[in-house]
Amino acid sequence: MVPYQIIQHKRNGAELKTAELSAFFNGYSADEVPDYEMSALLMAIYFQGLSHDELWTLTDIMLRSGKRLEFADIAGRKVDKHSTGGVGDKISIILAPLVSSLGVTVPMISGRGLGHTGGTLDKLETIPGLRTDLTLDQFRAQVRKIGCAMIGQTAEIAPLDKRLYALRDVTATVESIPLIASSIMSKKIAEGIDALVLDIKRGSGAFLPDLERALELAQTMIAIGQFYNLEVVALLTAMDRPLGFAVGNALEMEESILVLRGEGPSDIRELTIVEAAEMLRLGGVAASVGEGRKLAGKALDDGSALEQMRRIIEAQSGNPAVLDDPALLPQASVQRVLHAPSNGYIQEVNALKVGQAAVRLGAGRGTLDARVDPGVGYHITAKPGQRIEKDEPLASVYASSADGAAHALAELFDAITIADEPPPRPLPLVSHRVTSAGVEEL
Amino acid sequence: MVPYQIIQHKRNGAELKTAELSAFFNGYSADEVPDYEMSALLMAIYFQGLSHDELWTLTDIMLRSGKRLEFADIAGRKVDKHSTGGVGDKISIILAPLVSSLGVTVPMISGRGLGHTGGTLDKLETIPGLRTDLTLDQFRAQVRKIGCAMIGQTAEIAPLDKRLYALRDVTATVESIPLIASSIMSKKIAEGIDALVLDIKRGSGAFLPDLERALELAQTMIAIGQFYNLEVVALLTAMDRPLGFAVGNALEMEESILVLRGEGPSDIRELTIVEAAEMLRLGGVAASVGEGRKLAGKALDDGSALEQMRRIIEAQSGNPAVLDDPALLPQASVQRVLHAPSNGYIQEVNALKVGQAAVRLGAGRGTLDARVDPGVGYHITAKPGQRIEKDEPLASVYASSADGAAHALAELFDAITIADEPPPRPLPLVSHRVTSAGVEEL
Repeated sequence: MVPYQIIQHKRNGAELKTAELSAFFNGYSADEVPDYEMSALLMAIYFQGLSHDELWTLTDIMLRSGKRLEFADIAGRKVDKHSTGGVGDKISIILAPLVSSLGVTVPMISGRGLGHTGGTLDKLETIPGLRTDLTLDQFRAQVRKIGCAMIGQTAEIAPLDKRLYALRDVTATVESIPLIASSIMSKKIAEGIDALVLDIKRGSGAFLPDLERALELAQTMIAIGQFYNLEVVALLTAMDRPLGFAVGNALEMEESILVLRGEGPSDIRELTIVEAAEMLRLGGVAASVGEGRKLAGKALDDGSALEQMRRIIEAQSGNPAVLDDPALLPQASVQRVLHAPSNGYIQEVNALKVGQAAVRLGAGRGTLDARVDPGVGYHITAKPGQRIEKDEPLASVYASSADGAAHALAELFDAITIADEPPPRPLPLVSHRVTSAGVEEL
Repeated sequence: MVPYQIIQHKRNGAELKTAELSAFFNGYSADEVPDYEMSALLMAIYFQGLSHDELWTLTDIMLRSGKRLEFADIAGRKVDKHSTGGVGDKISIILAPLVSSLGVTVPMISGRGLGHTGGTLDKLETIPGLRTDLTLDQFRAQVRKIGCAMIGQTAEIAPLDKRLYALRDVTATVESIPLIASSIMSKKIAEGIDALVLDIKRGSGAFLPDLERALELAQTMIAIGQFYNLEVVALLTAMDRPLGFAVGNALEMEESILVLRGEGPSDIRELTIVEAAEMLRLGGVAASVGEGRKLAGKALDDGSALEQMRRIIEAQSGNPAVLDDPALLPQASVQRVLHAPSNGYIQEVNALKVGQAAVRLGAGRGTLDARVDPGVGYHITAKPGQRIEKDEPLASVYASSADGAAHALAELFDAITIADEPPPRPLPLVSHRVTSAGVEEL
């Protein structure tokens, strides 16, 4: 079976046999199948999709291209969380210490920001001294010791996925649901977890704005999970506006610390509690989601989540004093405030525009090897539906130069619209819950 | 505009702007766009197609990647013919001398066989000494002198098409109608012709077996022709069984010589006359297709086509004595006859199976750089619908070894089916005529 014929089969809509997928993808790993044949197959998959059997096979090939952890010696179910990425989405940073403070093991491997959405790793790394580049052995040891570690994808986890992603990124084959699903799941399964909470964003600032596509992604990932006996609960959440107030790495870290202290913006706290409740139920610590909610709220309010964060930071060589004094985080040199140009209602805070403006400001990266400016970003207190008066402050810009601040202010002005009438109802913060049993509208 | 975005636009079904196509394809020519991005775009084009504007632009880019001939100093319209390729299709070899003997200039640039269909060049080159690798200057000079030359594609004609074809061939993006049409037309327009007769094969042995796809290809090529003021007449012809008796390079050359002498199989003579009539009308020598038919039949019967073939062979350094003694062509060392295993009617002579068996026998090639065995092939006198008696000879195999002959005989036996009842009517030799005015069913 030559690569040509395998591409042709998929192009014609046939289901590829395990032997075909294996020959093609393992051949690619071994540099026997060239990039130009892989990109043609990926584009054919974009159009023709993958059956469940193909999905399972592809996920397995990517998983087996690297190491797979297991924590059989730790009692209880190991649970992680994954988000498809949003603007101002710092939930993972709060969730990992919160859930692990309640006794559920959370081995979390996260990615960096790319495009208009931020990445957990970039935010974590604003903590002075904190290392996210642990080896898998160090990662394992820390998870065993304190129940949680938060690191970046290592070369040992699904290296084939890493190569494929780089190729997809330059050949317009990223936005394929089976390719997205198998990519994420191969890395999550490698973590050695038993259950996963998925946060699938929808709305203008999401990677897949459509409800239908978001549901399809949820169901595809649940199907892969079933093959590995990995229980997946997917929540569809709003990304038509930024989450919380802060957008930008140190700013988001600071906001995360506030929520860990029982403060912070209400949408961040609420989404954290909803996801924590699912993880606590999946981890066997809470008998129901309702009980999980209560436990999570309490752990935020009584400081136990914050104390677990302190342990994680210390274990990863960071300075835990940031939890007491967030001013130790990197600071931007220039701050400017955006004032409301008129009376009215906040019609929209366009998450996509805010995210793209934040990238240009230096908070994000256009290519995987670019560096981010940790201190810069936005703090947007204006929320859709809010009544505002002329000259009232809507947001602040944090920049590393006066020019950058002026430009960022103009871009923010463009992202926020004000009108005389209140806007239509924004998307509910959490709209759907998808499990192997079906879709539940909340 | 980065390549990524251009691929994404086409993937999403957008029409690419001239500047986008030009940046991408000229960037590829300049080695700035890598193969893996080109193959992703080609696969996206396979699924999303090309608009007429895109087709014209792409054809123009390929045309401009090389030289374009012009014969303004030769009076009258220059006309060529192109076939999408079939098993036993040697019409071009007869057509070029026939039509040019009647005063129409025929500058013919042909390809080699690939896959299960043969190529004009491989057949021509069985004539001892004959060269098909003339330079464009020599080609031009010969066309001016005797009204016809028959050569292979040179590196000077549409080099971008050559690179793209090689990439399409290994990435399963050959069977795209806009890509096929722009590839053929860029090379034909470069010949400096004013009109073109297209022979589009359909049926099991054709590249595009479907009637609908064949019609779509015809209309796409006519649309490109209109942009260049190149009149295109497309004929849809039968390729559910081989054309004529001979399949194999020297065997087909011999059969061509017979038809040039006014002899040979009736289907070959008929299709030659039909296509010649169109070319003669397009070339302004015949006022109607009917008149063209008469002129063509006469030129085959009175030896004028044969004499023109002699001039062409001599001009291209070949030995014209083959026209008097076809035994001077390469001969296979082993001949075996296939006899009818039972009484009955020939149900099918499967063109695809015969073509594939001929490739395995050495008459064709699997890759572009493989060599062909000029003497080997089949001579199949059995035709669908024919009543045959047990032990009657159906076909001969010409091979270069006894083993090869035995294997080829078994494959031929598998390609020919015999039944008690006559088969359903085979496809008409010529079923549709397509011009810019529309589709005419014949």
